[in-house]
Amino acid sequence: MSSNTSNPVTSSVKTGTHRLDALLNARSVAVVGASADPGKITGRPIAYMRARGYTGAIYPVNPGRTEVQGLPCYASIAAIGKPVDLAIIGTAAANVEPAVREGIAAGVKAFVIFSSGFAELNEAGRALQLRLTQLAQEHGVAIVGPNCLGVANSRSGLIATFTTALETHALRQGRFSFVSQSGALGAYWMDIVLASGIGFSHWITTGNECDVDAAEAIDFLVDDPHTEVIGLYIEDIRRTAAFRNALDRAARAGKPVVAIKAGSSSAGAAAAASHTGALAGDDALYDACLAQHGALRVASLTEMMDVARLLLHKATPLGPKLAVMTVSGGAGVLIADACEPRGLVLPPLKTDVAQSLVPVLPSFVHPANPLDITGNVLNDTPMIGRAMQCLAADKDTHGIVLFIGMMHSIADAFVEALSEARKQVHCPIIVIWVGALESSIQALEAVGIPVFLDIPQATSAMSRCLQTAITRTAIARHPEAAPLASIHDDGQNAATLSEWDGKQLLAAQSAIAMPLGVLLKESDAVPGGLAYPVVAKLQSAELLHKSDAGGVILRIADKAALQAATQRLLALGKELGLSVQGVLAEQMLPFDHELLLGLRRDARFGPVLTIARGGVEAELDPDVVNLLLPVTAEDIQQALGRLRCAKLLRGFRGKPGADMDALASHIHQLCEWFKGQHLREVEINPLAIRGSEVFALDALITPMKGPV
Amino acid sequence: MSSNTSNPVTSSVKTGTHRLDALLNARSVAVVGASADPGKITGRPIAYMRARGYTGAIYPVNPGRTEVQGLPCYASIAAIGKPVDLAIIGTAAANVEPAVREGIAAGVKAFVIFSSGFAELNEAGRALQLRLTQLAQEHGVAIVGPNCLGVANSRSGLIATFTTALETHALRQGRFSFVSQSGALGAYWMDIVLASGIGFSHWITTGNECDVDAAEAIDFLVDDPHTEVIGLYIEDIRRTAAFRNALDRAARAGKPVVAIKAGSSSAGAAAAASHTGALAGDDALYDACLAQHGALRVASLTEMMDVARLLLHKATPLGPKLAVMTVSGGAGVLIADACEPRGLVLPPLKTDVAQSLVPVLPSFVHPANPLDITGNVLNDTPMIGRAMQCLAADKDTHGIVLFIGMMHSIADAFVEALSEARKQVHCPIIVIWVGALESSIQALEAVGIPVFLDIPQATSAMSRCLQTAITRTAIARHPEAAPLASIHDDGQNAATLSEWDGKQLLAAQSAIAMPLGVLLKESDAVPGGLAYPVVAKLQSAELLHKSDAGGVILRIADKAALQAATQRLLALGKELGLSVQGVLAEQMLPFDHELLLGLRRDARFGPVLTIARGGVEAELDPDVVNLLLPVTAEDIQQALGRLRCAKLLRGFRGKPGADMDALASHIHQLCEWFKGQHLREVEINPLAIRGSEVFALDALITPMKGPV
Repeated sequence: MSSNTSNPVTSSVKTGTHRLDALLNARSVAVVGASADPGKITGRPIAYMRARGYTGAIYPVNPGRTEVQGLPCYASIAAIGKPVDLAIIGTAAANVEPAVREGIAAGVKAFVIFSSGFAELNEAGRALQLRLTQLAQEHGVAIVGPNCLGVANSRSGLIATFTTALETHALRQGRFSFVSQSGALGAYWMDIVLASGIGFSHWITTGNECDVDAAEAIDFLVDDPHTEVIGLYIEDIRRTAAFRNALDRAARAGKPVVAIKAGSSSAGAAAAASHTGALAGDDALYDACLAQHGALRVASLTEMMDVARLLLHKATPLGPKLAVMTVSGGAGVLIADACEPRGLVLPPLKTDVAQSLVPVLPSFVHPANPLDITGNVLNDTPMIGRAMQCLAADKDTHGIVLFIGMMHSIADAFVEALSEARKQVHCPIIVIWVGALESSIQALEAVGIPVFLDIPQATSAMSRCLQTAITRTAIARHPEAAPLASIHDDGQNAATLSEWDGKQLLAAQSAIAMPLGVLLKESDAVPGGLAYPVVAKLQSAELLHKSDAGGVILRIADKAALQAATQRLLALGKELGLSVQGVLAEQMLPFDHELLLGLRRDARFGPVLTIARGGVEAELDPDVVNLLLPVTAEDIQQALGRLRCAKLLRGFRGKPGADMDALASHIHQLCEWFKGQHLREVEINPLAIRGSEVFALDALITPMKGPV
Repeated sequence: MSSNTSNPVTSSVKTGTHRLDALLNARSVAVVGASADPGKITGRPIAYMRARGYTGAIYPVNPGRTEVQGLPCYASIAAIGKPVDLAIIGTAAANVEPAVREGIAAGVKAFVIFSSGFAELNEAGRALQLRLTQLAQEHGVAIVGPNCLGVANSRSGLIATFTTALETHALRQGRFSFVSQSGALGAYWMDIVLASGIGFSHWITTGNECDVDAAEAIDFLVDDPHTEVIGLYIEDIRRTAAFRNALDRAARAGKPVVAIKAGSSSAGAAAAASHTGALAGDDALYDACLAQHGALRVASLTEMMDVARLLLHKATPLGPKLAVMTVSGGAGVLIADACEPRGLVLPPLKTDVAQSLVPVLPSFVHPANPLDITGNVLNDTPMIGRAMQCLAADKDTHGIVLFIGMMHSIADAFVEALSEARKQVHCPIIVIWVGALESSIQALEAVGIPVFLDIPQATSAMSRCLQTAITRTAIARHPEAAPLASIHDDGQNAATLSEWDGKQLLAAQSAIAMPLGVLLKESDAVPGGLAYPVVAKLQSAELLHKSDAGGVILRIADKAALQAATQRLLALGKELGLSVQGVLAEQMLPFDHELLLGLRRDARFGPVLTIARGGVEAELDPDVVNLLLPVTAEDIQQALGRLRCAKLLRGFRGKPGADMDALASHIHQLCEWFKGQHLREVEINPLAIRGSEVFALDALITPMKGPV
């Protein structure tokens, strides 16, 4: 795998100034080793671009030929004698570096390298690839690949790829762009957007990422005026800070990112390790990363296209409250069934809305949500527009869903009525049309009404888009936020501290209190003034899981019992052959709730906050949220709300609730403190909570290697 | 809604003897009120059948005409003068009963009534419908509807329906049949199976079910030699015993039933109540019913078609272990990701399998699961057949999944290699082909290889089919099981008994033990010989939730304390103004686990066993299984295993496990006892468990009305 620490993503707000402009808006392309065969890897880009009318110049380069596919062919890049923005290289791996050097010497600004045989193959390939990285850094050129399927731009007709997905389809301009670390997935995506009516703006497969990576490609697309939604397939992100900054920029620009991240399963993770030379990352952190930065994670291209339909038409409901109209009562029930588990609701119609519907509906239709307009729509199709206006008059209606089944005889009337309604109605309109004609779908989507062919696809897409839209809006509210700095972490740790030493260190912060405690070195050293009951805990950096070894004695009622307990624990320490620091005698405090609180520096993602339910049950079925730092107290409060045990925390069946504001604020202060510490990990377990107070009952702290 | 207690489903093993033969295999059809307009409700069936070459006789009946759509028209059914199997009626509601009576007089054996205006409309309609039910019962004729879309048979060309789904599509014979309580959903289903290559055998929409209902329709399809998979859309089943018997017969005949049950959500349930005159049932019991009888519940027609693809091609994996071949490494990772949460596994290749693959694969491909056969398949497509034989040589391979993306240039070679492999390989082959050509799909499905267009559809379908296949196999193992008897239940209850009275009643059974206890009427009546600690509980049929009112005192250590406690509880009873029975003093027993155990007679489904985790947490997020009786101890053990807390029950982190065999056996004995009791409900909460012992710590028993 390549190491890649170059190219911090910078915000180039205007188009035409991005480092990848020379690549994706190239005005001239040289094809090195150009083939006369339009079916060969280095013949296809030429054939594809000529057939689609690429607006720039194409220069085949091949010393053995004077003409390739009807174009003059040059012996070398230098021989072209005109400026070349982009060179496509598809030669054997060994010949790639010389070709890149030649191109750099001739003033080429960007390269697409199809060739394989680099980091994905073996150590020698890795070394070859590293030299390409160095060339890019030294000369400031952009290199895509190696081992990639290339890039494309639907507007200029630049097709620097050999994917067979472009064999038959016409280029179709669209507002959807795609960045893929897998060439195959890139090809499937291209096939789908060209075969359907979706089309695309830019398409970038990054392969081994010796230089240009997914983060930089996203950053470029944020500035592309034609891109409105960004699709993403990733297996491994190396520059996570740049990736997160790019996602934030996309959120601020109002451009949703829809991502497939491969390797969520254990088997998947193992397979990813042997693919594209990428090591599988920690899937839970990828998940947290995508969610926190407003990206929408999907599991398949099918799901990606479903949500893209909503996003491209800006038809994401404005909130969870839907008004549903249906030509079939049964379908209305199925829609309600599909909405409920996905957090979408069908509120009863308000009285004035119901009354306003009465003159609009046939006499036998009862105003309700879902609203069964019945087959009578065959006699009066424009009625649906009037009914939609009634429903949308309620400002709490976040979206209107219309269910149609077949009814091809009035398909045009439907399109007309819906197109008109789309102009009158303030909220998105979403159509579910079982058996829809392709022409109806195209016509409706042309006016901004997405069409789904069945209920689950529509309800899933609405629910998913809604969740991430909230996050993106929150991000966009802070345009001034400073970009994240790159992470440099050797991943090495010092030894974990004993609880006593850890707590001494924790005493330097004021976010989380600790019970009063003393370290007893001998059993006869018990001081007066302790408030009983106390707990006694054997202290040794060699015994981190004290309870399991019998190193904790609870509910000690008085001084004599504490002396005895201390003696017993010190004897245990000797028995276990531990280097013992002493016995920590600590006041026992009453509390209502407990959590596990973890702060950890991940070598890939940097500081991470983990909040989980503690105890045995949580081990069976984890109840956990992860947040990449930095976070606000509000982020933490929202995360606490996502725990399954949130209802318990808020107080349930007579048990007092925790003060969630205060809890989030305490945790947030601890995060702030952690940022400045040279620590690998702080684990507080349990964190005891009573009302607005929180206490660290136990703590394990692991410093990073080197001086604290 | 109609009351329908007629027509118990009987097992008519041979075809041609079923009551619905006259309906679905009708050799002659009269269309009452036949219209000359092929677009009208009573014109369409004639036009449809003539265009599709119905093999029987069509007799238009209309006193105002001598000819309809080119056929001789009769003034009445009697005037036809030849035997009529089926009469189609689409007149106004008021004219339906006379038409049925006329038909019966003329010897018609079956009726399809399109007309609406019956139970779905108002009380008068309900009365009209009841008279149809009575006519069917008195004369032994089969009546479908009213308010239905009719029936169809693809082989005879019988099209007793006016659905527009038959306007354009040719009839396509298939092995899939459908029973629908909704006409609209029936129409959508018909549209999908005719538009795709699936086709159908029989199609039955039951509407208001005045006579023929979904249960009887399923029963008929079990005997139809052309039906291999039965689709089902239901909102409300009235004859649940007949329905369950029909599902069992389908399971024994090896015919999977795939069901959509509308109304899982609270909103959906409300909507169902106002649709087709059907009251919404208890969704959890429908869920239990379908699962226990081997039916596969899906949420949409899309999901139904996905699973039907596997079922029709008998391509359900034989177990959870899949071997995956893929032309793209990324797709292999995504397949592994999709399998894991769905209970499908990709085991590592066994050594001998891996070795056998080496000579088959290109040198650069590493034998693994998923197996990335790479784009090299373009050069050597037959290789996939050889590789599949290697994978299938492992008898633990339950299915082989092949992922293809586009590759249209070798589509025919793929089809050829797979068709050949299908003959050699013992386990099912499932293809996921992104961008597949329609011709490839048809060719592969013709040889029994289902094709899916993306990963989630295939993995979901495999996972779902696998689960229900296990249940169906279990049902088929007991062909001798007696059919369930009809349920007659007025739903009325007597008052709930006090714990003491309930436990006196429970003492008659020996399945579940109870702690030793005595009923103290006065505080000075405490006898000797009690084993302390004990618990004291105030007994009154007017105080069923004793703890909430302070009516329970725990951990009473001796006789004096028990006397005091009894005094306090009796005083509390007076204070609350209760009619007090006494104080129950009961031995406190140590235990490791507790559950809630419920046995209840549901008015619709009969006796139901509910096992749930108790306590506050379970109220937050229920952990529950429901089983319709009768059940075996094995069924109960499997159900216990489906509880989320099953791992805890089995023993976790040092806590002793429950003896699951014994637990299931105790519960099963209690179920057997319950069957013979005239009780509405027995709730044991908590049921305390220690090792192989179980105790009812508290119990609430509600008798049915009338003498126990």
